[in-house]
Amino acid sequence: MRVVRFEDERGVVRLGEWLPDGQARPIEGDLFGGFAVRSETAAVRRLLAPVAPANIYGIGLNYRRHAAEGGQQVPDQPLVFLKPTTAAIGHEDPIVLPAAAPDEVDYEGELAVVIGRTARKVPEAAALECVLGYTCANDVSARDCQFRRDRQWARAKGFDTFCPLGPCLLIDPARDPQSFAIRTTLNGRVMQESTTADMAFGVARLISYLSHQFTLLPGTVILTGTPEGVGYARKPPVFLRDGDRVTVEIEGIGALSNPVRADR
Amino acid sequence: MRVVRFEDERGVVRLGEWLPDGQARPIEGDLFGGFAVRSETAAVRRLLAPVAPANIYGIGLNYRRHAAEGGQQVPDQPLVFLKPTTAAIGHEDPIVLPAAAPDEVDYEGELAVVIGRTARKVPEAAALECVLGYTCANDVSARDCQFRRDRQWARAKGFDTFCPLGPCLLIDPARDPQSFAIRTTLNGRVMQESTTADMAFGVARLISYLSHQFTLLPGTVILTGTPEGVGYARKPPVFLRDGDRVTVEIEGIGALSNPVRADR
Repeated sequence: MRVVRFEDERGVVRLGEWLPDGQARPIEGDLFGGFAVRSETAAVRRLLAPVAPANIYGIGLNYRRHAAEGGQQVPDQPLVFLKPTTAAIGHEDPIVLPAAAPDEVDYEGELAVVIGRTARKVPEAAALECVLGYTCANDVSARDCQFRRDRQWARAKGFDTFCPLGPCLLIDPARDPQSFAIRTTLNGRVMQESTTADMAFGVARLISYLSHQFTLLPGTVILTGTPEGVGYARKPPVFLRDGDRVTVEIEGIGALSNPVRADR
Repeated sequence: MRVVRFEDERGVVRLGEWLPDGQARPIEGDLFGGFAVRSETAAVRRLLAPVAPANIYGIGLNYRRHAAEGGQQVPDQPLVFLKPTTAAIGHEDPIVLPAAAPDEVDYEGELAVVIGRTARKVPEAAALECVLGYTCANDVSARDCQFRRDRQWARAKGFDTFCPLGPCLLIDPARDPQSFAIRTTLNGRVMQESTTADMAFGVARLISYLSHQFTLLPGTVILTGTPEGVGYARKPPVFLRDGDRVTVEIEGIGALSNPVRADR
């Protein structure tokens, strides 16, 4: 099932099962508890990030060929960072080039995992039971802050609008999370094309590892790392500019597309 | 006024005005909107962190003498990092030495600021109007993860229980936040003793700076940095051990005290 969080025609925020025609069947209840899908349909005026994140964890250098393109090695444990929840936006919301660091903003197409139940010290074999679903993410990153200007990645990864999520949440407990094809396009040009099979630490391993460091609350979002093809590693480098459009597409989930604009 | 979030005798979570006898007058409404204090009193069974944080920002190297003790300079802009909201605990809750990194856990007594209204690109002159109140914080830090083992500070600063907050929230809009005396004791021995006047970037400057990078939602907590006297900079170093008790005391707010225990 594909679930969306959306504003309906009156601006009310609702959850719904996303239908092929773009409308939704409203969901009653709580994604993290019990819920029911109603039979009527509602118009989707605007898609929101499919969850309001409890916390957002990111993982660095988690695709082998992406680590190589940056001249780095895959670390021997996951490289964990945090993004503030205020970075989350939805499908078609603009990625804003921040006034404080507008010049080297880069895309990172990623599979995002949404945690469905509190996870603490979960063994790898049971980790996927903690998953509510999957969505597309763009781990937008200001490379100047990340590599040169700042000591920590809080700004580089955390400026407002730096975490597009969507368009929907795929709830499919039988799905192998290492089997997704993922593609990022910039103005229609393919920049990243890979599969989650290239992850160094798979989704179950990441959840287990994180749950041994932190309590993962329902609604926690984990960005599982990006494949090769990011902008800063290209020659010449490619960064996001006012008027661009960047799209992260994962088979079976959908296409998360966001325009880019200057901070006005 | 000093406000506490607490469990009453029936385990119900409530807000209240904290009275000198340790009881509370229940608050009706929302700290971020309008609220009223009732006239009867309620027993406080357990203090919680005075707010459930929206996001937690930390500031590194923000006291001149603390930067010097670590052989470092105050940076030319605030050194910002994030803690996950799951790190927050209250007065008397145990700080747990995490199984993954139990050996070099250190205290950092700090003044914490709680944001009361959404702040985005706020000029320094208006920044204190965004403050709801002040509380004591302990920016607990695993120094091995911070300095040697990890690339980012997510674990070092973010393990569960690594953000004690409390005992109460001081709501006093007229208070100059650079006028607080602050002291940290470990098992009764004074380890840090300073004043917020030694901050390199004052509270108004920090709020203004952060609000130019991130939207600060109501309930955002800002840990404003720690004065000199931390454990790792001592000769020999002092780290927290099972059975210790660490207390952060700020004049006019109160004493935030937490036992330390191993991860069992």
